[in-house]
Amino acid sequence: MARWETITGELREAIIRGEIAPGTTLPRETDLEERYGASRTTVRRAVEELEAEGLVEKVRRRGTVVRRSPARTRLTRSRRVYRDDIGYFFDRTAQGWRALETPTITRVPAPADVARLLGVEPGGDVTARSRIMGEPDTGEATQVAVSYLSPDAVAELPVLAEPDTGPGGIYDRMEEAGHSPLEWEEAISARMPSPEEARLLALAPGVPVLRIVRTTRTPGGRVLEVNATVLSAERFEIGYAIDRDTSATP
Amino acid sequence: MARWETITGELREAIIRGEIAPGTTLPRETDLEERYGASRTTVRRAVEELEAEGLVEKVRRRGTVVRRSPARTRLTRSRRVYRDDIGYFFDRTAQGWRALETPTITRVPAPADVARLLGVEPGGDVTARSRIMGEPDTGEATQVAVSYLSPDAVAELPVLAEPDTGPGGIYDRMEEAGHSPLEWEEAISARMPSPEEARLLALAPGVPVLRIVRTTRTPGGRVLEVNATVLSAERFEIGYAIDRDTSATP
Repeated sequence: MARWETITGELREAIIRGEIAPGTTLPRETDLEERYGASRTTVRRAVEELEAEGLVEKVRRRGTVVRRSPARTRLTRSRRVYRDDIGYFFDRTAQGWRALETPTITRVPAPADVARLLGVEPGGDVTARSRIMGEPDTGEATQVAVSYLSPDAVAELPVLAEPDTGPGGIYDRMEEAGHSPLEWEEAISARMPSPEEARLLALAPGVPVLRIVRTTRTPGGRVLEVNATVLSAERFEIGYAIDRDTSATP
Repeated sequence: MARWETITGELREAIIRGEIAPGTTLPRETDLEERYGASRTTVRRAVEELEAEGLVEKVRRRGTVVRRSPARTRLTRSRRVYRDDIGYFFDRTAQGWRALETPTITRVPAPADVARLLGVEPGGDVTARSRIMGEPDTGEATQVAVSYLSPDAVAELPVLAEPDTGPGGIYDRMEEAGHSPLEWEEAISARMPSPEEARLLALAPGVPVLRIVRTTRTPGGRVLEVNATVLSAERFEIGYAIDRDTSATP
């Protein structure tokens, strides 16, 4: 194990055990050099690693401070779709979140997994409706939601690419056009954020995002839309109760 | 934007669009310095950022290579618990996975979220049963599963802390002791791996983990166990179908 890794390990342990409490400043570099008998380069590398892990952050005029992790909110994505007067919604916890800015409509290269689901070339341009959702009271951003539309769906229903898609939004327009009942499935994954996502969601370095990819299909199985929503993995988790299958009757 | 961020941005875009294909080597540092008219420090910082994002990796004797991301496997954690001749299981995709080594039983400081669920002091020592699960054919590790036992449950049922807990494992022992039917709930979150988890799961730098925390309760609501399972977020995603609530009948 390299010298810096040993130092990172000791500091990490002390932070996780609460011996160095959240909000306190780490010893100065010169003090760490002395304590560990290590060079400045070694000490810097050790502290950079803690920063990359999201355990500490650099604060102007204070030095390197142990981060307070926010309390994690559980989202009750309960495998169900609901409806209110605005239209379908998938997450009762997030029902009160609203678009913080006007949604933008752009042509963007489809991410690889989205391209595969939409049946287009990876990197090929598709229509994207992007929204930053958040708490209407505080203006705090909670999720970045991008709806990627199938080129066929836009050709059939040009309104899907309009800024205002009318009451009930794109799903009502699709169902009115005969694709009723729409079917949805979701997948949850995680990755490091893009710099843009980190900025929009005010993520500290070392904080990954949860990514929920929802696919909208016609009753015949044609994919009309893929929605990718990104949230801070430090602020949110996804919870659910577990039912017993008949094989597991006690 | 700092100069290195601009360079990272251009290289990231070229990698994501597939213009620099997976498996190819990035231009050498001297070539990048020339192309961007930037110092070695700037070029190094830009490439380190790509490595931290999991897009490239350093390969001995070859230089910096664009990573091939593995195909992501969908786990069908279908909010149901099943039973086979080994006992309860929660994930049909993972039903064939087996412990690759003998499970270890240790006293460890409870992670903060686990401590809260178990009702013990954060950092207080609890009994942990740890298992590395994987493909029995290839010996490849797929998940690290740690079962944290409530001190009260161990006091009541010392067998829970034995290496061999008998047929049906800890859950059958708990139900035989009168805590039947057990109830479970799960939460999915994500974070960067510990160095130990990165090593066990052979994760590249910049790859976060999905973490599934399952809580086992008695019918009266007492928490007997918290199981925390960690998987590569690059290799796995969690998928499910969506049902319509009565509010969303088309």
